[in-house]
Amino acid sequence: MRAVVFDSGLRSVTNHPEPEPAAGEAIVRVLVAGICKTDLEITKGYMGFRGVPGHEFVGVVERVEGAGGQALVGRRVVGEINCGCGRCGFCVRGLKGHCPGRTVLGIHGRDGAMADYLSLPTGNLLEVPEGVPDEEAVFTEPLAAAFEVLEQVHVRPTERVLVMGDGKLGILAALALNLTGASVTLLGKHERKLAIARAQGVGAVLLRDLKKSRDYDVVVEATGSAGGLEAAVQLVKPRGTVVLKTTVEESKVVDLTPLVVDEVTVVGSRCGPFAPALKAISERGVDVRPLVTGVFGFDRADEAFRLAVEKGSMKVLLDFRG
Amino acid sequence: MRAVVFDSGLRSVTNHPEPEPAAGEAIVRVLVAGICKTDLEITKGYMGFRGVPGHEFVGVVERVEGAGGQALVGRRVVGEINCGCGRCGFCVRGLKGHCPGRTVLGIHGRDGAMADYLSLPTGNLLEVPEGVPDEEAVFTEPLAAAFEVLEQVHVRPTERVLVMGDGKLGILAALALNLTGASVTLLGKHERKLAIARAQGVGAVLLRDLKKSRDYDVVVEATGSAGGLEAAVQLVKPRGTVVLKTTVEESKVVDLTPLVVDEVTVVGSRCGPFAPALKAISERGVDVRPLVTGVFGFDRADEAFRLAVEKGSMKVLLDFRG
Repeated sequence: MRAVVFDSGLRSVTNHPEPEPAAGEAIVRVLVAGICKTDLEITKGYMGFRGVPGHEFVGVVERVEGAGGQALVGRRVVGEINCGCGRCGFCVRGLKGHCPGRTVLGIHGRDGAMADYLSLPTGNLLEVPEGVPDEEAVFTEPLAAAFEVLEQVHVRPTERVLVMGDGKLGILAALALNLTGASVTLLGKHERKLAIARAQGVGAVLLRDLKKSRDYDVVVEATGSAGGLEAAVQLVKPRGTVVLKTTVEESKVVDLTPLVVDEVTVVGSRCGPFAPALKAISERGVDVRPLVTGVFGFDRADEAFRLAVEKGSMKVLLDFRG
Repeated sequence: MRAVVFDSGLRSVTNHPEPEPAAGEAIVRVLVAGICKTDLEITKGYMGFRGVPGHEFVGVVERVEGAGGQALVGRRVVGEINCGCGRCGFCVRGLKGHCPGRTVLGIHGRDGAMADYLSLPTGNLLEVPEGVPDEEAVFTEPLAAAFEVLEQVHVRPTERVLVMGDGKLGILAALALNLTGASVTLLGKHERKLAIARAQGVGAVLLRDLKKSRDYDVVVEATGSAGGLEAAVQLVKPRGTVVLKTTVEESKVVDLTPLVVDEVTVVGSRCGPFAPALKAISERGVDVRPLVTGVFGFDRADEAFRLAVEKGSMKVLLDFRG
């Protein structure tokens, strides 16, 4: 099958072996896959991953291995990327994303979505309602990571929320949090990116225009920079909550005393729930369309990756439909 | 009056002016004051404080300024150290410890307890039940800081808790958390200090004997070292909670990625509720007596401070009763 493969470098091949599903897993024919910042980190060595990258996709179920889940065959689906053992304490509590033996689609121990076919447990799949374009459904995974903030933190409609960082995750987080009725401000460096959020009712402020006061009940740190936490603590109210989204290789000197004196809570936040994300996309509660920078066929995968690393880029999609 | 004063250095004087209470404040005649690690930090410049240090005390109310609170006169009391404006959002929510205009007894903007008299708002005072010795009642403030963990974090009786650090705060936190029924382990470097907690039913483990696995639902970081957070994150379960108690001048390089990937929550924690602490002391749910290293009269305050900085010391008390 066709696939983007990362080993020593990133290559496009047409003879990659198809995935072999375990019992209870589905083979999904990929329609569209997204390029995520994590994929770019992987090409720099993050997680030591080798194989097919990609964990954002929409596709059609081709077949299911084993007796159960046959009703899914032929359905268009998106899929959660963490595959747990199903037996440990985390899996039993529905937290397969923290299963110590997990594989993660295109990130850890399992070939990913930048190929004609992928395999995932049927329990990970969620059907996409008719009428939602592939180019929007593919945002379910990154928007789910934004909804994870609401899964972890009670954001009250009367509160003031600041989202730091106008990258894809920052914009999606601001849009998801804005659905709560809270007063949401997105902080960034790029007027053009801020405008995407502003057009959907989010307050958006350039970093250089920010009034530096401790006014926010919740600060979501999505800067992608190791210095983000310290900056966030300077903007959150005493007893407030900082949600940490940034994962970087780099470490940073951090003064933790303000955290203790002001009794700030810091919540690490990663992958999130698919259902509310897909619901928000299909109802256009969050309009993801302005985040698409480009759609490239498989034969132009190189070009897609080159565009994805450019500074002004938002989401670049790989089209496997052709 | 007699007072320990910190300006350029630490001195004992006998002619320090008595505090002048504002309306609604009480003058308290100090019986016993405790020396806290924060007091030692203050003598190194922490908070830039100048004046009478000391925020752990038990005393007798001499008089109250204004009409209210006269019933307190003659009562033996302990007192919360944060004095708020009474009008801001934090004060209205009962969080005077976070009032931006607060003074803090012996730490910020208000002379402290190492003197014959101190002043505090009557609302900060809590009567000590008869029969509780002064040398135990004086532990209410530090034990309250331990109870703050339970005020902020739901510790379930079925959970495993690790307290890192066998200093006074670590031991008190382990003893307070042990009341919940949770399985509590105190981690430290000093067999003699660990034994104090072990004698009251806490599991206690020397650092060199610790099995390094991520087994704990809650980790309380009370090491007093800037590196404590990173060590704590390596011992807490994914989705678990780290309570940060350490305040140090020093900053530290921290790798925050494990926090995000494992969705750990970090809760900064400082001063706490007096009532449950005093209750635990008076009912001997927590027995603080083994933590007393020495009791010194005012004329031996120098000696008391010298002992307090020694490595093996626990709580050193200043006795103003003589």
